[in-house]
Amino acid sequence: MGCRPDELTFTPSGTHAVHSGIFGTLAARRRAGRRLVHSAVEHSSVLHAAEVHEAAGGTLTEVAVDRTGRVAAGDVAAALGTDTALVCLQSANHEVGTEQPVEEVAALCREAGVPLLVDAAQSLPWGPAPGAWSVLAASAHKWGGPPGVGLLAVRKGTRFSPQGPLDERESGRSPGFGNLPAVVAAAASLRALRAAAETGPDEAARLRGLVERIRARVPELVPDVEVVGDPVRRLPHLVTFSCLYVDGETLLQELDRSGFSVSSGSSCTSSTLTPSHVLRAMGVLSEGNVRVSLPYGTGEADVERFLEVLPEAVRSVRERFGVPVREAPARGEEAAETEEEPAGVVVDSLGKRCPIPVIELAKAIGGVPVGGTVTVLSDDEAARQDIPAWCAMRDQEYVGEQPAERGAAYVVRRRG
Amino acid sequence: MGCRPDELTFTPSGTHAVHSGIFGTLAARRRAGRRLVHSAVEHSSVLHAAEVHEAAGGTLTEVAVDRTGRVAAGDVAAALGTDTALVCLQSANHEVGTEQPVEEVAALCREAGVPLLVDAAQSLPWGPAPGAWSVLAASAHKWGGPPGVGLLAVRKGTRFSPQGPLDERESGRSPGFGNLPAVVAAAASLRALRAAAETGPDEAARLRGLVERIRARVPELVPDVEVVGDPVRRLPHLVTFSCLYVDGETLLQELDRSGFSVSSGSSCTSSTLTPSHVLRAMGVLSEGNVRVSLPYGTGEADVERFLEVLPEAVRSVRERFGVPVREAPARGEEAAETEEEPAGVVVDSLGKRCPIPVIELAKAIGGVPVGGTVTVLSDDEAARQDIPAWCAMRDQEYVGEQPAERGAAYVVRRRG
Repeated sequence: MGCRPDELTFTPSGTHAVHSGIFGTLAARRRAGRRLVHSAVEHSSVLHAAEVHEAAGGTLTEVAVDRTGRVAAGDVAAALGTDTALVCLQSANHEVGTEQPVEEVAALCREAGVPLLVDAAQSLPWGPAPGAWSVLAASAHKWGGPPGVGLLAVRKGTRFSPQGPLDERESGRSPGFGNLPAVVAAAASLRALRAAAETGPDEAARLRGLVERIRARVPELVPDVEVVGDPVRRLPHLVTFSCLYVDGETLLQELDRSGFSVSSGSSCTSSTLTPSHVLRAMGVLSEGNVRVSLPYGTGEADVERFLEVLPEAVRSVRERFGVPVREAPARGEEAAETEEEPAGVVVDSLGKRCPIPVIELAKAIGGVPVGGTVTVLSDDEAARQDIPAWCAMRDQEYVGEQPAERGAAYVVRRRG
Repeated sequence: MGCRPDELTFTPSGTHAVHSGIFGTLAARRRAGRRLVHSAVEHSSVLHAAEVHEAAGGTLTEVAVDRTGRVAAGDVAAALGTDTALVCLQSANHEVGTEQPVEEVAALCREAGVPLLVDAAQSLPWGPAPGAWSVLAASAHKWGGPPGVGLLAVRKGTRFSPQGPLDERESGRSPGFGNLPAVVAAAASLRALRAAAETGPDEAARLRGLVERIRARVPELVPDVEVVGDPVRRLPHLVTFSCLYVDGETLLQELDRSGFSVSSGSSCTSSTLTPSHVLRAMGVLSEGNVRVSLPYGTGEADVERFLEVLPEAVRSVRERFGVPVREAPARGEEAAETEEEPAGVVVDSLGKRCPIPVIELAKAIGGVPVGGTVTVLSDDEAARQDIPAWCAMRDQEYVGEQPAERGAAYVVRRRG
């Protein structure tokens, strides 16, 4: 864990560790200020705690990320105002695998006298979190331990005032009957993992190689795919890509039928109807989003079979939506033949969900002259993110978004 | 469980279920009022939540219990003022086994339009909680299930507004990665227990018989023992008694050496230095307190061996404290011979912990004439409870407590 035994507390989950860590630090820092600074791509447990803090009168500063999902340490430093009580930064992102500059941010926080909570849930299986963090949260099931074991470490010297009803258990930091068998299993599994890393072949490097293969091959095998996340500064075992014109839910089912259980940050697979806040913050395509986690010990053959199965899975989903494959028309010809109004065409996608609005845009763009526009009316939250992402991928001009009677009107101008 | 599947939520522990149940109901009832009514012998999870509620501006009404640990339903009814938001009542006590009049209280609450939260952790292994409760909390490890599984049931129609940072899991009532394997194990173990109860011999009745044996035999085998809790309206498997002149910690160690793992509500065994709030509320002796839980399947031979081992264990602890066994002097004689001041003697037990102050009182009482007093100076919190309890057991007059420079002065008058 990279901490002393008396700094560590067991909680019922990583989410509980994050909640307790945030509220315990904020309460102890109340005199210093009530501002909570966090990256835009933190785990939802951080964002939910932040919402509660804001509802109770606290203030929030969300630090933006670049297209790879990474914050700039300087942006965090700029947010360290005099009223900042706490900074929250994940060690690596749970959806796209991008690592954050934790060590650098920890040094900046220390300099400013502001505690840093590191959500190390994703990276802890691969080693202790770097840097002089103040509070650390993690979860045992992320390294193959059992569910029911979160970890909260509070560095000696960090002001900490646990909140909510507590009891004498876990140093008064986590109430309720302890889950000792699960804690023992969690410790044993982490120990086994670390022992294997020391004595055996480098599993992290091996998985990293497999992920590199997926990152390189998927765009070759599947047209209209965007691989997201930092290509180098990333978790060893996780890779995420988005496929244009694909319904994430259907694609997941296709892959599941072939024996591959993957996740998705698409709105079409979530109950909230909004795409992943991580993909949104990165400004990348969300439709047809697929997240592949390679478990410890994943074989090369499994990865090869996945690469074999994926193209057909995507193709069959696209076919169901009637997506014309790269239907770009002979340009000059069409532009001459059509006599569209310069105002262009309007596509009514109201009531239709991801990926339909983008598919209808792709179909319509061939029907307008170069310089003409397609206006997509959509009340699907994913469209706001995916129409600009489509334009970037297809080198079309995203003019902008206009208010509409229902939903919004997204205007795209044909470049070529 | 005695509820519909969609009324049930899994939490990380019974404590979490109680906390979520209380705060969720209080928040939803905020317009009705902010008074929380609870019995004086509730589990600490209820009391800790009540403290937080009070610190946040809420009000509390604690309903007293009789010497058996039972509330009078009428006393709860009397506390149902117009501003009462919630009543909390356990189905049965966790330390002394006394059952509460849940069904009667539920009917009174329903009539008054006030929700009732029943903490059924202790009784659920033996069957669903009776009555028209609104919210129910329980814990799987109490019926032999794994740790890590609390249960929160909210009856359809009960206003409920979950508090704190939440996520989409467990109907938005309990955040964090779910512990599915443990939940399955919990369900399987409860099902096995109920199936055994239906088809096999009546385990509850069998354990009840064994507990009756302990209740009857312990006072015969061990002098100066008080068996506590309701003799009839009680849990089948639990029995509690307190032994005068005994240090609970040492007695537990003695019994542990003989292979019996028991609990204690004595201050001498807890880190808080205050005796169990349950024993205090009941006004019974706390020193040398022993709680025996008979696990499912406990054999008769085990109980017999416990009854064999106990008297010697108590005797050896008392011997270590130099307790004179029933040292009552020839009365008339001593009263005539001594020429004590009518004010009596003062025993300085400052800095000494349970059971020393009571032992010193017992030693000193023989040295004063009938009508004379012994004043015990003590700063041990247990003395406040155990000196009056000793007087009741030994038929001496407890005059009262007076302020002292340090601790308090407890005055006892010799009757005979």
